[in-house]
Amino acid sequence: MLRTHTCGELRIEDINKKVTLTGWVQRLRDKGSLLWIDLRDRYGITQLFLEEGKSDAALILAARQLGREFVIRATGTVSERISKNDKIATGAIEVKLEGLEVLNSSKLPPFTIEDDTDGGEDLRMKYRYLDLRRNPVRESLQLRHKVAQQTRIYMDSLNFIEVETPVLIKSTPEGARDFVVPSRIHHGEFYALPQSPQTFKQLLMVSGFDKYYQIVKCFRDEDLRADRQPEFTQIDCEMSFITQEDIFNTFEGLIRHLFKTVKGIEIPVMPRMNYAEAMKNYGSDKPDMRFEMKFVEFNDVVVGKGFQVFDQAELVVGIVATGCAGYTRKQIDELTEFVKRPQIGAKGLVWMRYEAGGALKSSVDKFYQEDDLRKIAATAQAKPGDLILILAGPADPTRKALSELRLLVGGQLGLRDKNKFSALWVVDFPLLEWNEETNRYHAMHHPFTSPKREDIPLLDTDPGKVRANAYDMVLNGTEIGGGSIRIHDRPTQQKMFTMLGFTEDEAKRQFGFLMDAFEYGAPPHGGIAFGFDRLCSLFGGADSIRDFIAFPKNNAGRDTMIDTPATISTEQLKELGIAIKG
Amino acid sequence: MLRTHTCGELRIEDINKKVTLTGWVQRLRDKGSLLWIDLRDRYGITQLFLEEGKSDAALILAARQLGREFVIRATGTVSERISKNDKIATGAIEVKLEGLEVLNSSKLPPFTIEDDTDGGEDLRMKYRYLDLRRNPVRESLQLRHKVAQQTRIYMDSLNFIEVETPVLIKSTPEGARDFVVPSRIHHGEFYALPQSPQTFKQLLMVSGFDKYYQIVKCFRDEDLRADRQPEFTQIDCEMSFITQEDIFNTFEGLIRHLFKTVKGIEIPVMPRMNYAEAMKNYGSDKPDMRFEMKFVEFNDVVVGKGFQVFDQAELVVGIVATGCAGYTRKQIDELTEFVKRPQIGAKGLVWMRYEAGGALKSSVDKFYQEDDLRKIAATAQAKPGDLILILAGPADPTRKALSELRLLVGGQLGLRDKNKFSALWVVDFPLLEWNEETNRYHAMHHPFTSPKREDIPLLDTDPGKVRANAYDMVLNGTEIGGGSIRIHDRPTQQKMFTMLGFTEDEAKRQFGFLMDAFEYGAPPHGGIAFGFDRLCSLFGGADSIRDFIAFPKNNAGRDTMIDTPATISTEQLKELGIAIKG
Repeated sequence: MLRTHTCGELRIEDINKKVTLTGWVQRLRDKGSLLWIDLRDRYGITQLFLEEGKSDAALILAARQLGREFVIRATGTVSERISKNDKIATGAIEVKLEGLEVLNSSKLPPFTIEDDTDGGEDLRMKYRYLDLRRNPVRESLQLRHKVAQQTRIYMDSLNFIEVETPVLIKSTPEGARDFVVPSRIHHGEFYALPQSPQTFKQLLMVSGFDKYYQIVKCFRDEDLRADRQPEFTQIDCEMSFITQEDIFNTFEGLIRHLFKTVKGIEIPVMPRMNYAEAMKNYGSDKPDMRFEMKFVEFNDVVVGKGFQVFDQAELVVGIVATGCAGYTRKQIDELTEFVKRPQIGAKGLVWMRYEAGGALKSSVDKFYQEDDLRKIAATAQAKPGDLILILAGPADPTRKALSELRLLVGGQLGLRDKNKFSALWVVDFPLLEWNEETNRYHAMHHPFTSPKREDIPLLDTDPGKVRANAYDMVLNGTEIGGGSIRIHDRPTQQKMFTMLGFTEDEAKRQFGFLMDAFEYGAPPHGGIAFGFDRLCSLFGGADSIRDFIAFPKNNAGRDTMIDTPATISTEQLKELGIAIKG
Repeated sequence: MLRTHTCGELRIEDINKKVTLTGWVQRLRDKGSLLWIDLRDRYGITQLFLEEGKSDAALILAARQLGREFVIRATGTVSERISKNDKIATGAIEVKLEGLEVLNSSKLPPFTIEDDTDGGEDLRMKYRYLDLRRNPVRESLQLRHKVAQQTRIYMDSLNFIEVETPVLIKSTPEGARDFVVPSRIHHGEFYALPQSPQTFKQLLMVSGFDKYYQIVKCFRDEDLRADRQPEFTQIDCEMSFITQEDIFNTFEGLIRHLFKTVKGIEIPVMPRMNYAEAMKNYGSDKPDMRFEMKFVEFNDVVVGKGFQVFDQAELVVGIVATGCAGYTRKQIDELTEFVKRPQIGAKGLVWMRYEAGGALKSSVDKFYQEDDLRKIAATAQAKPGDLILILAGPADPTRKALSELRLLVGGQLGLRDKNKFSALWVVDFPLLEWNEETNRYHAMHHPFTSPKREDIPLLDTDPGKVRANAYDMVLNGTEIGGGSIRIHDRPTQQKMFTMLGFTEDEAKRQFGFLMDAFEYGAPPHGGIAFGFDRLCSLFGGADSIRDFIAFPKNNAGRDTMIDTPATISTEQLKELGIAIKG
């Protein structure tokens, strides 16, 4: 190595040692008679110093010519600092500079390499290699490495085998859009990049691998929303000869292991909530359980008082914002504006203040007497000082709108602390959901999910009512993992494809290999996949996954640093047997 | 779990335990009064038995209806076997069957699921999920998992960070052909799949990550030769502030660690051989050092005796096949035929027998007296009983041909034992090689490799003579890893691109981001990449990498199981803005 120590290594015990350090010039402080250089590498910062009169004059001159981000090799003697810095691990010492070699110079970076940078998102992405020098970004990727490491330690300890599945696979119409890869050898034919290794991991179960996992890149050619990436990473897992209960134990164990080893946090046993409950009580299949604020239904107590909005509504439902009776008119107006935004879609917001003194005030005082309001308050189990917020309308959209309001109010009340973690299992998802656009059922999870045995008769009579052996793990209101017990016999799989509108021929062409495999001794099996990028960002307490990916794409699917996607040569196109269509 | 134990778990200590096992019916032996079932899972085989008169009659009936590869759940009591089988870990016990549930039936597999199968390559690939049930294939993938695990343990222990680099990158003309991915959002533009994460790992060094590794999929759209895969896996590594010596120590350490932990073998310190030596003495930059059989040059001793072939040859060079004086005429003819094959390209083979009794006989007795032959033998340090094999012609192709002959003879002499391992470093590769077809220099390693400092002046005068800071690790005659100390400043990188025939504009368009990065404080750095599939196959003592990949492609780049590449819908083509060109 060109160094004897890293910049994070030297301590008071090292005093008088002759050392050589390498790294980047973080900062130069020139007080005339004294000169300090903060030298930075991945491991920390070490202070170098020179003293006019004592240090070599040529050396001082050379040091004065250093700029920010210059790469240097510094030799010197470790000495004790007079004024120690207990914020950094090397703060007790400094190195008296005795030799200096400039390994590389640096132009002035387009933004400052500091924890809080003056660089905007676009600039940071174009110069990602400089952005990655910043502590918070580097630490995010170090955290990611640690999460991956601990995932492997846990899975290995349970005898899971990591198996790499192929990246060049086959395009299938079900699900999101595939990225495709034209074949040069077989003109007119394409590979596709996997949206997940789903069918391969199931085949590995058919092969008797028993317990499989993989930390694996997956690809989806979606219209990018904020914080979606065309390539993303999953912890992908599958097990044979198991029940749903085994999946819960194994993977609740994984997440608890990660919290313990990566964050030093013991999280409680994860409660389970079925899908119907979650939708009824929180209006979401991924309720944020860092706070309760459960939905309260008011239909019974508000009906028949002449308020048309409530009388005609399928559902009148609300939440109690604890201690918010003091919300100003302006604050309440803002909540009303929020629920009326098109993407939320409510018509309006009814509120009722349960004032500290016991008085009740509402936006519907015209229709409801104090007695009626007391009933509402009692139904909601509200207490003096609380604010009740109520929406009304058709059941499903109203619940969804109230779910958004619940998250907003929870946030305002400081109930969504990023350093607090609350996880649960949501279970018993519907197998199918009706799609108005395509006028057919779609698989809610994917076409390989098994229906609950007791619900199978409903497949022919009321398919929308069939529950699946499907489950999600939800952390702080985000789905971090989802999976199911799979179908493992040909007739059921064939029936499922029929339900989804596949002709027999289409099903065979797309998934014939899997249905064939089911005829050669397929074991009962099931699994789960975790969104690794998101998991890491939650562990890091960040809103965006962007900084947990070394080289992310922007919202247009573009890497502005290397400038891709880009045109290719006409020769390449010719070799591939394809043409750009204008 | 549907089982209490795996099929590899029960021992004599478990006698009288009531157990439930799950697995596949490997074999059914029906002796009339006694019936045995071999139940198999990933962990082993357990024998189940039934006894006419003692076991339940319905159970016996049900058992008789089982077929090979049926998936069952078997309940029973562990008992001691009368005739133990010490070949399997569970051979001391058997399970008296008391309950049987058929979890899935199986059609008759298209080939037998045994260590030695009757299935040919094509059939095995089409039904890969059945092929993967066979012990040798499953064990190969388990070995792969272990090699990956131990690689990570070693790299993590040295503070390397695993960072995922992107899969959707940019096509570059240098090197092999890229697989490309049309962008739906940016019509006419393409991503490319990485041939290696080379530029990204260098950017991570610029970012100060200091030590990086990744076990990563890479892609090359090459015309497939036997045992090449369009997607393959690398152990990809890079370090900053290092010399070549640090690379050697670190990664020789890795391979030694893998041998120790995976194979239980301590391999000796790896010798180093420079490229020029390797070519001169073994005619190859990846000499198989499991045996010596060093080249001997005879020009001085054979010239001027009237044998035109030798007199006119640039090089007369041979090997000593120890103890092969007894080779028959037929055996020697076969060697001659071998070297004359077009892919070897020699004109003929000269041989000389040093017979056990001391007599010398050769195919050129017409030109050489006994005295001359003794000189040849002495030069070759041959002993009675040896056979000398000599080729003549232009130096480079003759050495290459002799290298092939050396490997063939070494193999015939049993010197290439798959369970013996010999590794070395080949160093000081040329920086550039002249390409007759394109009439320009190509980078021997890649364009990011640095020239040796002392050879830099030669870049302008004799570029072909410039040596690179490049190195390969060679194991048993196969290059398992290669790398270099990189260029880390813009002017040198720019000069390199110029040498390779890039215009300044082309260099900027393709690799501008990297040259830009070098201007913002790039540290000295270097690295290496190991071919993971090949490494695993060498550890497994196999010739082919095929069975160390779960779902490989065939030689036409096709996965015959899922049948890809395949056509995609016209709607997909339209969305992507491309057309098939007839």
